[in-house]
Formats: sequence, C-alpha cells, structure tokens
Amino acid sequence: MPIREDLRGRSPYGAPMIDVPVTINVNENTHPMPREVVEAIGREVHQVALNLNRYPDREFVTLREELAAYLGHGLSKENLWAANGSNEILQQLFQVFGGPGRSVMSFVPTYSMYPLLADGTNTEFIAGQRAEDFSLSVESAVEQIREHRPNIVVLCSPNNPTGTGLELAVVEAVYEAVATYNGITIVDEAYAEFAQDPSQTALTLLEGRDNLVVTRTMSKAFALAGARVGYFAAAPAIADAVRLVRLPYHLSAVTQATALAALRHRGQLLANVEDIRAQRDRIVEKLTELGLKPAQSDSNFVFFGGLENEKEAWQALLDDGVLVRDNGIAGHLRVTAGTEEETTAFLTSLEKYLKG
Amino acid sequence: MPIREDLRGRSPYGAPMIDVPVTINVNENTHPMPREVVEAIGREVHQVALNLNRYPDREFVTLREELAAYLGHGLSKENLWAANGSNEILQQLFQVFGGPGRSVMSFVPTYSMYPLLADGTNTEFIAGQRAEDFSLSVESAVEQIREHRPNIVVLCSPNNPTGTGLELAVVEAVYEAVATYNGITIVDEAYAEFAQDPSQTALTLLEGRDNLVVTRTMSKAFALAGARVGYFAAAPAIADAVRLVRLPYHLSAVTQATALAALRHRGQLLANVEDIRAQRDRIVEKLTELGLKPAQSDSNFVFFGGLENEKEAWQALLDDGVLVRDNGIAGHLRVTAGTEEETTAFLTSLEKYLKG
Repeated sequence: MPIREDLRGRSPYGAPMIDVPVTINVNENTHPMPREVVEAIGREVHQVALNLNRYPDREFVTLREELAAYLGHGLSKENLWAANGSNEILQQLFQVFGGPGRSVMSFVPTYSMYPLLADGTNTEFIAGQRAEDFSLSVESAVEQIREHRPNIVVLCSPNNPTGTGLELAVVEAVYEAVATYNGITIVDEAYAEFAQDPSQTALTLLEGRDNLVVTRTMSKAFALAGARVGYFAAAPAIADAVRLVRLPYHLSAVTQATALAALRHRGQLLANVEDIRAQRDRIVEKLTELGLKPAQSDSNFVFFGGLENEKEAWQALLDDGVLVRDNGIAGHLRVTAGTEEETTAFLTSLEKYLKG
Repeated sequence: MPIREDLRGRSPYGAPMIDVPVTINVNENTHPMPREVVEAIGREVHQVALNLNRYPDREFVTLREELAAYLGHGLSKENLWAANGSNEILQQLFQVFGGPGRSVMSFVPTYSMYPLLADGTNTEFIAGQRAEDFSLSVESAVEQIREHRPNIVVLCSPNNPTGTGLELAVVEAVYEAVATYNGITIVDEAYAEFAQDPSQTALTLLEGRDNLVVTRTMSKAFALAGARVGYFAAAPAIADAVRLVRLPYHLSAVTQATALAALRHRGQLLANVEDIRAQRDRIVEKLTELGLKPAQSDSNFVFFGGLENEKEAWQALLDDGVLVRDNGIAGHLRVTAGTEEETTAFLTSLEKYLKG
C-alpha cells in the first residue's frame, strides 16, 4: 500500500476492547443513562428524522447557544464551536494553526492522542517534560516553551492519565509565554466537571486572551461518549479560523439533537457526576490505605503508583473480570471511577491481589 | 490569528443558505422521509441511547456488514469503511495516501470539495482538464496522468456538477495508468443509485484491483444528508490503512443506528429514487424543448447550458422562490430534481423567464 512513509508500521490507536463484567478502562461515565434523558433523545431524534433528507444546520446555531448558556462566563454562540468528539475539535485546530513546518507541544505523560493528531495533520509533536511526580511548574513550562517556541501548546487539565488539574497560574504563564510570539494555547478540559473545585477553569481566563482555546466534551460529565460531541470556547476569530478547515455539515442533525436533549436534561446527568466524584474519592482513600500512591484526582479516574508489577496487577484484576488501563508507566495503573458496585469490585480484587 | 499562510484570506466552503419555498440547489433528496423510516430511526436511536455513556463500536461491524450486503458484488465487511459523510471518507484517504509532497488529481469542473480537502490535508491539488463538452476520454485522462503522476486520482462518476457518469472503460484505463506507479484511484459514486444504468458501477472493477476505492454516500439515495454517512468499498488493506488516521470512535452510536435503520428500510427509500429519476428525465426533456442544453444526467440533478446570462436566470428563479445552483460556469446552472411540485415550480419559472 502506498501509505505515507511516516505512517508505515504504525498500529491504529485504541484501548483493547475486552468483554468483561467491569469495564473501567477508558474513563467512560459508567452510570446508567437516566431514563428521562433516554426518552428525550429518542423524542428529539425522531423529530429531526422527519427532515434528515436535508443537510443539517451547518452552523448548529441552537447547539452553540445552549452550550454557551451552559458554560456561562459571559460566553455567547460566537465563542462556541463543536465537532464529532474533542478529537475532531483538536484535529481542526491543528489543521488551521499547525500543519507542515509547525509544531505542537504538550507535557507527557498526557493524553496519548495528541501526538497522533499531530501526525495526522503533519504537525511536529514536541514532548515537553513534567517533574518526576508528573506535576508541571510555571518555571519548567515556560522554560521549555521558550526553548522550543511551539506554534501550539496543549495543556490537559485535569491531565489524562494522571488525573490532576493544573493551577490556573500555570495556564496564565504558559499563555503569556506562547502569546509573545503569537502562538495558540489550548487547555483541554475534558474532565473539568469532575474537578475538586470546578470554578478553577480556564474559561475564567478567556476574556482578553484572543489566542486561548478551552476544549470540553460531552463524553464524560454528560455521559455521551457514544454520541461524539466535543466543543470549545474561544474568541470568535478562533471559531472563524476553524471554519476554513471544517468539513461542511460536519455535525449531523442527529448529533445536534442528541446533544441538545442531554444539555436540556443536565440536572440528572450532573447529579451522577456528584456520585462519580464520591466513588473517585473513595478509590483514592482506599488505595492510600492499601499503601499505594494515588495521584490527586480532579477527574473521573484515579492514576496510582506503588505497584511492584503493574502488568501482573492488571492481569489479576482482569482475571476477576475487572478491566483497567495500563498506560505504559512503570508501577502505575489508571482506573475509572465506576458505579458503587464497580468500584467495590475493583477495590476488592485489587486488595485480594495485593494481599495474596 | 496565526492561521496557516495558505489558508489566509480564504472563505469557508458552503452554498448560500437562503430560506425559500423551493430549495433545489444542493442536490438533496427532497422527497419527504417515509413515515416508516422516521419511526425506525426514532426507535433505533432510542434503543442505543440507553448505552450512550459508553463509547460506540469503534469498528461499526454491523453497519459494515449491512453496507456490504447492500452493495453486493461479493463484498464483505472487510472491504467496507464508513465515516461522517463522504467528505470525511475522502479526508481520511487523502491523509493516508496524500499529504505533504504528494498530490491528488481530479478533472474539473468537478466536486468543488476536492481541492479544499487537498488543502486541509496538505496535499497538492492538480486540476486535470475535460473536453469542452465536459467529457473525459481515455486518451486525455491517461495522458494527463502520465504527465503529472499524481499519487491519488479522484474520478467523480456521475460527475458533479455536470451529472454525467464516466464510462467504465475510462475508469479502467485511469486505474491502469495510476497503478503502474502504485498510485490510488478513487471513484466517487455519490450519485450512483440515480444512474441511467446503475449496473455500470466501478464496484464491478474492484476484484483484482487493490488500489481502487469506490466511495458512496447515504446522503442522496438514502435521503440521509442530515445524518452524515459516507462509506467506501475497497481491498481490506485500504480500510486497514485508513484505520491509521481515523479518529478513534469517529462514527457515533447514534449515526450507526440511524444508518442501519435506513438501510433496513431501503425499499421505500429506493422507491423514491425511481420517482426522482422520472423528475430528472422530465427536466432534461423540458429544458431541451425550451432550447437549452442539458447534459445527460446519471444523477439526481441536471446541469444545463444555453443561458445567455446565468446570473440573471438564477436571480429570476430566486425571485419566484426557486433556489438553484450557480457553479460559476458561464451560461450554465445546476438544478436538483425535486418532487413533482418542486420540479413544476422550477420549470414554470424558468419558462416564464426565458419567454419574457
């Protein structure tokens, strides 16, 4: 096959899909979809199905209005943009602000799609470094940015796979460093709703920062991983720039209707977020008790170290029907905060493994 | 904004959206969605909404199986791939087989997204030429390919905006010319179901041609423009190559369910295709009678020349509430075959304009 040289020998991205009773490996919202939301989605999609022969609203105006209203912070539809998952959001941003001869930097370990999205858009990926405890200081971030002058910096906060949110002071300092040479700073807040203090969001920094983009997703807090809806908030000029590379009508009428139904029933969905936060805190507490080293988590998952052999632990859990994620970091695993039952299954299995 | 230099000053792609009674400008299937299909989509989406908190089947196995069964020609799920509209299909193919230092050629006038998709994937676009009557001969196509040696050739058949299908002999010759240097040939058959003889499809050429890709869409014959489902059939290795650049979980569970519901109720949808073909033939006949020059159409639209001033004609139609497409080709307009009433409105308005 005459595929591009730099793609030869690669494997497609994707966590192993194994059918087990407790699947807490890909940070899904494992709480059952509330019945009322299911009914609303069915109803809304039934309604738009009447006109599916027509192209969808290319500008998805209603969805942008309602996403802006949800986010608050004085944002309006001109600040909003959406796509098929935050992966497509990032792809569009890399296409328009990256590309050949340009670079994107992020600080590893972080979301493993960033380098792949860079590849897919022919943008050089620069792996910035974190401290040994996976933290990122103002000094370190700014120094690395000054050295490499990447066109785009992506800060994942709360960070995946470590789970910890970045202090806004770091975001501000990174933005200042990148803005000096007219670069773009993206803060990927996929897990923002699960933060210990959700008011600590980069949305508060948007005003007056024209090169700042805050990305979000409906996959996690809104339990819509299956519907693929990511979005961003930024200056209107950023949304206009993305319009130059977006595929026309990229967001289907069915996707728009599904997202709107979930947004309009967010009370129940965000109530589940509270329960997931409680399970997450329970995991951190119990793992500490077991002598492991969980990172502070602002997300719906917990990254923990202190394992002698993470591959053996992963397998032991799987043998008990519990699938967690091995991110390839020695001594560490990552587990999604599931329902109370799933969390219990995980903690019970892990305790058995550690003691046996 | 620090957007890529080559995108500066560009405008986003998209036909003007004007709210008028008769919208026959973007080749939609204007026939109302059959009630039974609407109900099936509502039902199927309601069902998958129960599990939208989980990521969708990354490999959309059932959809690939049923698309293969629909296409026939001995194809199986390994030959099939789908994405959010055939634009995303082409974007993925350009990403993996094109990219920096590589080129894609098509023969203009043709679908105006090809050069934009080339831009978006940093692939050089080469505008091959057609004869004055917009036809493309074996000799001309092969000569132009030998001169430019593009990595990818896209043949739009039936061609948009001219509406005419390409003889399979041309496809075969192009394939041979491109395959000599291991290039890829893509035949975009978005309108294939409307052809005068639908058995003349490049699907019949797939066997033994590993570098041939035939793309299709559910937007037209299946009346799913609003749902964004494009797909291709090719050797399994082509689908595997595309997996290297596709975004994980790019096809939502809602999209998969909608596509399956339409596929399973294709009897009624394809019955509408028969009626659209009849309206299309009626347009060609009447335009000829009016002294205009309609191209032979294998699609759900008619491209016609012979207008003294196509901009004036476009405006006169719009003044009567009929929106058609001006593709920027002197003396020509393009009109979608609508329902019987829409077609009558168009023909009546055009006749009035020509006679007065």
